[in-house]
Amino acid sequence: MKFARFNYNHSEHYGVVTEEGIKAVKGDIFAGWEFTEDTFSLDEVELLAPVLPSKVIGIGANYVGRREDLPESVPDLPVFFLKPDSSVIGPEKEVIIPHSIDEIKFESELAVVIGKEASNLSKDEVLDHVFGYTIGNDITAPQFFHDDGHWTVGKSFDTFTPLGPVIETELDPLKINVKADINGVEKQNSSTEHMIVPLKEMVAYLSTVMTLNPGDVILTGSPLGAHLIKAGDVMECKIDEIGTLKNTPVRAQSLINS
Amino acid sequence: MKFARFNYNHSEHYGVVTEEGIKAVKGDIFAGWEFTEDTFSLDEVELLAPVLPSKVIGIGANYVGRREDLPESVPDLPVFFLKPDSSVIGPEKEVIIPHSIDEIKFESELAVVIGKEASNLSKDEVLDHVFGYTIGNDITAPQFFHDDGHWTVGKSFDTFTPLGPVIETELDPLKINVKADINGVEKQNSSTEHMIVPLKEMVAYLSTVMTLNPGDVILTGSPLGAHLIKAGDVMECKIDEIGTLKNTPVRAQSLINS
Repeated sequence: MKFARFNYNHSEHYGVVTEEGIKAVKGDIFAGWEFTEDTFSLDEVELLAPVLPSKVIGIGANYVGRREDLPESVPDLPVFFLKPDSSVIGPEKEVIIPHSIDEIKFESELAVVIGKEASNLSKDEVLDHVFGYTIGNDITAPQFFHDDGHWTVGKSFDTFTPLGPVIETELDPLKINVKADINGVEKQNSSTEHMIVPLKEMVAYLSTVMTLNPGDVILTGSPLGAHLIKAGDVMECKIDEIGTLKNTPVRAQSLINS
Repeated sequence: MKFARFNYNHSEHYGVVTEEGIKAVKGDIFAGWEFTEDTFSLDEVELLAPVLPSKVIGIGANYVGRREDLPESVPDLPVFFLKPDSSVIGPEKEVIIPHSIDEIKFESELAVVIGKEASNLSKDEVLDHVFGYTIGNDITAPQFFHDDGHWTVGKSFDTFTPLGPVIETELDPLKINVKADINGVEKQNSSTEHMIVPLKEMVAYLSTVMTLNPGDVILTGSPLGAHLIKAGDVMECKIDEIGTLKNTPVRAQSLINS
């Protein structure tokens, strides 16, 4: 099923996307929910980020270009980073380029949405704790990376974590393609089989460090091909089985002028 | 006033610590609250972390030993890091040393608690957006720092962010001493005047990167003198005007044996 979070008439709802439209649900999508009587057409709602995570965790450089380039073993200590909840936005929203710079980097990613509290999981227990999958765009301003290797500022600006458009709960995440088009030209397209730290190992490792809670999001890394873009460039992050997450960067000044 | 969050008879409350005990309050301490009829003695309640932040932000190496060592200007890009909400614990709680290591590092810090949504603040607007101040112990497992400079894993383990015991709302944060005793011996004691990035500049800078929300916590850095400690060592982080935040590390195994 595809779960969407949406705004209708100034109130927020969850729903399931069907051929007839979005069937609204009530309750907690992670703990127990049921359909209401309401169905909305996609035209009359505003899609929001499909989840409000208490934490967003990303992994550094996690894809190789070809399967034969995969290392024989998973690194002992992968590079992880946290993004603040304040950086999350939904589909079709503008990404604000920070003052003083002109370019930001896009990165299309498969995003895992945790469904059940997870701590010290084995690899084989991971999928049982996953609610579903959405698409993440891990926006970065590398100009704000610290020389000593710290990425926090460069990845934490407001609007730097677009998520959506929906959470797909029925998906085999191990053999799908993560893609990105910029202005209609394909820039990223790689199978999740090219991950250096595969999904189950990644979530299991993280769960030995920190308790993962329902709604937490893990960005599983981005295929080769990401680059800097400017205001007005159209980013479309795509996973065919989930949908397309489209966002466009704008200059910070445009907020002041608007 | 000193606000405490506490557990009484399996339910959580906020209260104000007075000479007669903790006077319970109802409402949202950030948005509007009033006293209830209930007063509890400190003996009959369990103090909890005084806030459940949506984000915890820390700053790297932010103290000099002597005022004359302060740089002439604040660094353009300070080192910031995020800690997950899942790492927060309250006073008197055990800090779990991760499996496979024997030692962790303590760092006593003045912790700013945001009171009003804050974005693009000037230095002079900062204190107006602060609710109050508590003590943070920024626990680290440097063995899990990545060679390329990423600190996330080493700072994110569950129990690695003790906060408390209370939030003091009436405090001049610019001239107080941040201290730590280990097993009763003073290891840290420095005036907040020794901060390289002073408090107002720090919060103003962060607010240009990410929207700060009520309850968010900013750990303002730790004085010189922190070091590795082992299971059983008693950590007491102290700011006289706020109180003492006491925690003791235990080995991960003791959880399994208990």
